[in-house]
Amino acid sequence: MNGFACKAPQSVSADDFTFSGLNKAGDTNNPAGFKATLVTVNQIPGLNTQGVSMVRLDFAVGGVNAPHIHPRASEMLIVMEGTLEVGFVTTLPETKLITKVLQAGEAFVFPQALTHFQRNVGKGTAFAIAALNSQNPGTQPVLAAVLGSNPKIPVEVVAKALQADNNVVTQLQSKFK
Amino acid sequence: MNGFACKAPQSVSADDFTFSGLNKAGDTNNPAGFKATLVTVNQIPGLNTQGVSMVRLDFAVGGVNAPHIHPRASEMLIVMEGTLEVGFVTTLPETKLITKVLQAGEAFVFPQALTHFQRNVGKGTAFAIAALNSQNPGTQPVLAAVLGSNPKIPVEVVAKALQADNNVVTQLQSKFK
Amino acid sequence: MNGFACKAPQSVSADDFTFSGLNKAGDTNNPAGFKATLVTVNQIPGLNTQGVSMVRLDFAVGGVNAPHIHPRASEMLIVMEGTLEVGFVTTLPETKLITKVLQAGEAFVFPQALTHFQRNVGKGTAFAIAALNSQNPGTQPVLAAVLGSNPKIPVEVVAKALQADNNVVTQLQSKFK
Amino acid sequence: MNGFACKAPQSVSADDFTFSGLNKAGDTNNPAGFKATLVTVNQIPGLNTQGVSMVRLDFAVGGVNAPHIHPRASEMLIVMEGTLEVGFVTTLPETKLITKVLQAGEAFVFPQALTHFQRNVGKGTAFAIAALNSQNPGTQPVLAAVLGSNPKIPVEVVAKALQADNNVVTQLQSKFK
Amino acid sequence: MNGFACKAPQSVSADDFTFSGLNKAGDTNNPAGFKATLVTVNQIPGLNTQGVSMVRLDFAVGGVNAPHIHPRASEMLIVMEGTLEVGFVTTLPETKLITKVLQAGEAFVFPQALTHFQRNVGKGTAFAIAALNSQNPGTQPVLAAVLGSNPKIPVEVVAKALQADNNVVTQLQSKFK
Amino acid sequence: MNGFACKAPQSVSADDFTFSGLNKAGDTNNPAGFKATLVTVNQIPGLNTQGVSMVRLDFAVGGVNAPHIHPRASEMLIVMEGTLEVGFVTTLPETKLITKVLQAGEAFVFPQALTHFQRNVGKGTAFAIAALNSQNPGTQPVLAAVLGSNPKIPVEVVAKALQADNNVVTQLQSKFK
Repeated sequence: MNGFACKAPQSVSADDFTFSGLNKAGDTNNPAGFKATLVTVNQIPGLNTQGVSMVRLDFAVGGVNAPHIHPRASEMLIVMEGTLEVGFVTTLPETKLITKVLQAGEAFVFPQALTHFQRNVGKGTAFAIAALNSQNPGTQPVLAAVLGSNPKIPVEVVAKALQADNNVVTQLQSKFK
Repeated sequence: MNGFACKAPQSVSADDFTFSGLNKAGDTNNPAGFKATLVTVNQIPGLNTQGVSMVRLDFAVGGVNAPHIHPRASEMLIVMEGTLEVGFVTTLPETKLITKVLQAGEAFVFPQALTHFQRNVGKGTAFAIAALNSQNPGTQPVLAAVLGSNPKIPVEVVAKALQADNNVVTQLQSKFK
Repeated sequence: MNGFACKAPQSVSADDFTFSGLNKAGDTNNPAGFKATLVTVNQIPGLNTQGVSMVRLDFAVGGVNAPHIHPRASEMLIVMEGTLEVGFVTTLPETKLITKVLQAGEAFVFPQALTHFQRNVGKGTAFAIAALNSQNPGTQPVLAAVLGSNPKIPVEVVAKALQADNNVVTQLQSKFK
Repeated sequence: MNGFACKAPQSVSADDFTFSGLNKAGDTNNPAGFKATLVTVNQIPGLNTQGVSMVRLDFAVGGVNAPHIHPRASEMLIVMEGTLEVGFVTTLPETKLITKVLQAGEAFVFPQALTHFQRNVGKGTAFAIAALNSQNPGTQPVLAAVLGSNPKIPVEVVAKALQADNNVVTQLQSKFK
Repeated sequence: MNGFACKAPQSVSADDFTFSGLNKAGDTNNPAGFKATLVTVNQIPGLNTQGVSMVRLDFAVGGVNAPHIHPRASEMLIVMEGTLEVGFVTTLPETKLITKVLQAGEAFVFPQALTHFQRNVGKGTAFAIAALNSQNPGTQPVLAAVLGSNPKIPVEVVAKALQADNNVVTQLQSKFK
Repeated sequence: MNGFACKAPQSVSADDFTFSGLNKAGDTNNPAGFKATLVTVNQIPGLNTQGVSMVRLDFAVGGVNAPHIHPRASEMLIVMEGTLEVGFVTTLPETKLITKVLQAGEAFVFPQALTHFQRNVGKGTAFAIAALNSQNPGTQPVLAAVLGSNPKIPVEVVAKALQADNNVVTQLQSKFK
């Protein structure tokens, strides 16, 4: 469980601990204007049991990393370029939004598994680097999970949660293929 | 950190380990038709450091426990009375819905911090008992967090996430005070 | 280690997270007048790595869940029906008994791996639901472990612990086949 | 939680990490012929958060460390002098006794919170050194916990567990003041 | 222990989760040609209990982050600019050096508490961002710890470890004030 | 993950939990005048998942256990015979040496992964028993790691760290084959 669990220490090489390609901006040519490039145990076998991973976040102008959670990790982010509005929501009974506009060089913390988002509110592209304390943090965009899962969550469940009519929900669901 | 952290062992009494009142159904006379009665370290001081808590979930006919997460716990539920449809959504890239209709006496597991829900799909009231592996699991209803936080998450962020117009978002937000 | 360790996320189904049969009272037609129905990772594969399990405890009139430990878990119990006397013993130097008579709807906490028991002190049958913070908590009834292990613990060891004669121990051991 | 939680790093001194007096055999002039000298966070403040402690175990000829558990630790023991019979009992459904006679220089492992014992089966005194993976492991001698707690566990509970008459239990309880 | 341990949830603000100043290169005008700018729980109170921190590493041409350990963390690094030679040494019996030259955009993992280093082997300045899975990882440059502690480790101890004469050690120690 | 992960409970035997040979002093006929005899999960399969291991440390007159770290464990040591000078160095910015001369029967704690050493400063041989809170703690002698890894850490890296010339480093490296 500790250390080099999978490979014998004699046979590990530097490649088991390396990943390339984070110097290029991710492709943000999509409706969200956003791209996350994750480096977890799926990309670096040597991360196994080490409890850490990183991600590069690229934003077009106005790009949004939609509200999401990482079920198995806390996150810390540093804006490398541009201006990001970031925020997370606390648990019941407050569901308070803790939010901040960050310039390049500013860091922010998103506590364990709480819903959070980032948005590029600057005039140019933006990018950030973030750290997560799990080699396999997982990501769940909460609106896509509630409205766009496969199969869909029953309309009535979502309607009650939104205090809305079923046809409002059906319309919202239709945006997620 | 381990054991009886707060009180000296000599001064603890049975009351530090007891909570009353779970025999009565929670009041489900509300729009959701649902009431959660939590018993965490806030209710039982002796739970401190023990890493466990429980909750009673009551449902009116058609009542819904809206999609939510517990940021610091896995959950296991047993239906005590009635019929519940339950489900959780997996992480990216699947965001698969794992769902099941449970009769009284059936148990189900909601993995660590994943979005999940329950709905009463039977003809009478229903109730369930659930276990969480944290004395302070926290609860975040994800739609209320995204649409009803205080202050609100910027309309544009939610609109991008929903692939919808701003006025759709404003209308959805207006349902949450 | 985190998440869905054993099965690929694509192949999991709701059955991996479900267990049936807790609606019927366990068969208490035995000398103890007691039956525990456990739902651990042995019954629900999806509990793997989730750190939680549950158990249904049924008691005939006067039935006793003998003093026991769970080596890998804390426990929290809710009385669903009937009246239970419950208790646990603290560590040295106190070995204090913390005890309480619980009515239906009352909850109680048994700290990590401490010796504890329950007894039906009401006029009818009783049952309880309990939560444990391990998917594989283990159970060790301490008197059966000391007097009825296979093979037996040497008579002299038990005699010293009881401050009793060897033949007292032999007689006590003979009750455990 | 990590590191030197309580004292500022500038003010710690070697005395916060030191304990004296394990060179003398503990006084085994008692009915059990046994003495445990523990060195936990209660004796060494610098153990706080370090998750380890040690104990010296001294045995007169025939001396017994009665069956007991450490609710928050696994244990590993090395016999330094003499001959010890050691053993632990597994959980249900086996409750198998794993036992061994150890000579000086032999080591043995007692898994997390399982009931275990040691007995001097040699011709002279014996002593051992043991390691526990908690700075505050706790100790609960299980027979003393069941029969000698303060107040006593109800006679009927113990009688059921022993499959014995109440007066047998009362007599056993009377040995524990 | 979990969540917002220190402040009441009502009173936390965004400033508790923010840190500024990582956009400027650290001052590398020193003998090592290197500067680490850490952002741990000492800089961001909201990191408490979140188990993560980050650091910006700046290198002059030829600059070296001397061999060091983080006693309470694994580390993952991304080169943002320039070319870094990085490496870590495994435990006994191998003490194998796992090393790699990284270009901008390449990531590398340094396992839990192992001795590691980075060096700028490019023609210009370099900088990297690293993630650590503790809010309080600690840093210990191992040669400075062995040769430059206050007070000094006895000369004879270091001489044995180096298989060198005492005056070699004294000379090495004299470089560390 | 918990309990007897590898073997079925039915098939474990006492030999899975036993190790012999710690009664003989390790062979200290080597330049360091020191020998460590470890008992980890490599020696005792039953230690798997138990989070503890032990080690016997033997010292010739003047023998030295060179400065080293255990990347995955805290350590507690008891001097069984002789007189040991022990010490550890704290993290930046202090790198303070916490040191003590211990007589037989004295215990000392080396916090998680910090550089530490022991030296026999008595007139005869010495030995100690130590506990570590990992079944696989790992050992890294820091000077051998920095100067004697395979392949070697680049001379320039070590020279910067020592504030010394390259030829000083080459000479130091030559002692480690």
